[in-house]
Amino acid sequence: MRIHTETLTLQTKTSEALYDITAMLQSCVKQSNIKMGQLSIFIPHTTAAVTVNENTDPDVAKDMTMSLQKNIPDDPAFRHLEGNAHAHVKASVIGPSLTLHIQDARLLLGTWQGVFFCEFDGPRHRKIHVQAWGT
Amino acid sequence: MRIHTETLTLQTKTSEALYDITAMLQSCVKQSNIKMGQLSIFIPHTTAAVTVNENTDPDVAKDMTMSLQKNIPDDPAFRHLEGNAHAHVKASVIGPSLTLHIQDARLLLGTWQGVFFCEFDGPRHRKIHVQAWGT
Amino acid sequence: MRIHTETLTLQTKTSEALYDITAMLQSCVKQSNIKMGQLSIFIPHTTAAVTVNENTDPDVAKDMTMSLQKNIPDDPAFRHLEGNAHAHVKASVIGPSLTLHIQDARLLLGTWQGVFFCEFDGPRHRKIHVQAWGT
Repeated sequence: MRIHTETLTLQTKTSEALYDITAMLQSCVKQSNIKMGQLSIFIPHTTAAVTVNENTDPDVAKDMTMSLQKNIPDDPAFRHLEGNAHAHVKASVIGPSLTLHIQDARLLLGTWQGVFFCEFDGPRHRKIHVQAWGT
Repeated sequence: MRIHTETLTLQTKTSEALYDITAMLQSCVKQSNIKMGQLSIFIPHTTAAVTVNENTDPDVAKDMTMSLQKNIPDDPAFRHLEGNAHAHVKASVIGPSLTLHIQDARLLLGTWQGVFFCEFDGPRHRKIHVQAWGT
Repeated sequence: MRIHTETLTLQTKTSEALYDITAMLQSCVKQSNIKMGQLSIFIPHTTAAVTVNENTDPDVAKDMTMSLQKNIPDDPAFRHLEGNAHAHVKASVIGPSLTLHIQDARLLLGTWQGVFFCEFDGPRHRKIHVQAWGT
């Protein structure tokens, strides 16, 4: 059993958008030399998250951002004074951690799936902690 | 340390519903012969998810579907042209991965808990990737 | 590879609130003597959840509770008769499981991050299953 850790970085460009990080993660798996096991992703930020969704039609990621904005708008009732309370809520609704499976030395993803870093309060310089383990 | 992988299949019957997969997962744990460790579930679809909730009163699962429909309706503002953008958003809100604990050769669940496959754009033939590992 | 399990307990005080459990979890990591690996948290309840968010300004946790209440109110259309259907939905939206990384014998968290137990139907006596594993 081997553990391989990496910290990826990402410069986000706008206040809210999803970034496809699938290729970066497949690289980590290759680097790790792990054939069978898991890849755990952890986002060390409180206004960003990680998810899996369709990466063929880029409109899916845009619809997600729009839907979250409609449900969790910048509400004057929020008490957190930095103006980004909505981003903190979105971060917990989507979630900071994700566990993927590694099989045959690659991430086991569905045909239409990609992994997305979700920026809810950018632009910022972001980190993504990755831990691959297995045999 | 042993890793046991399986891909379960499920034929969903309607557009949106939750399916109790607890018994299928307990079978995987039994098959794996693992006494102590974890069971990782990954859904390789972009309009479905996995969660844990009450499986005693079937109304809980129905309330969940209804509540998600109210919050994330089929909005004409969605740009994804297949008419299932709402299902993509729900999939990320509930999430594609879940990690459960195995103890004494069984899933460690609370008294009222069951594991549910969440269909948001059925009926479809679905897969559930399962990885049990431990000692 | 070592696996260390613990069940933490928590008495919640009100119907809905977030509780910072970061210090309790760091203690588990210390107890486990694991230097590198993962900490998996599982909540064995159907009206509670676990998340990561900012623990510097306590208003962030209050804003989260308020935002979830606005989006998922106690709706008369809910069929579950116990009056806590909203809490079941919130539990699945935030999620029952969380995987954190252990590095240098501590939880690898961002500067502003803390781990929160989310009570949605208290006050109750709650359990938190924790599994640390690694080397």
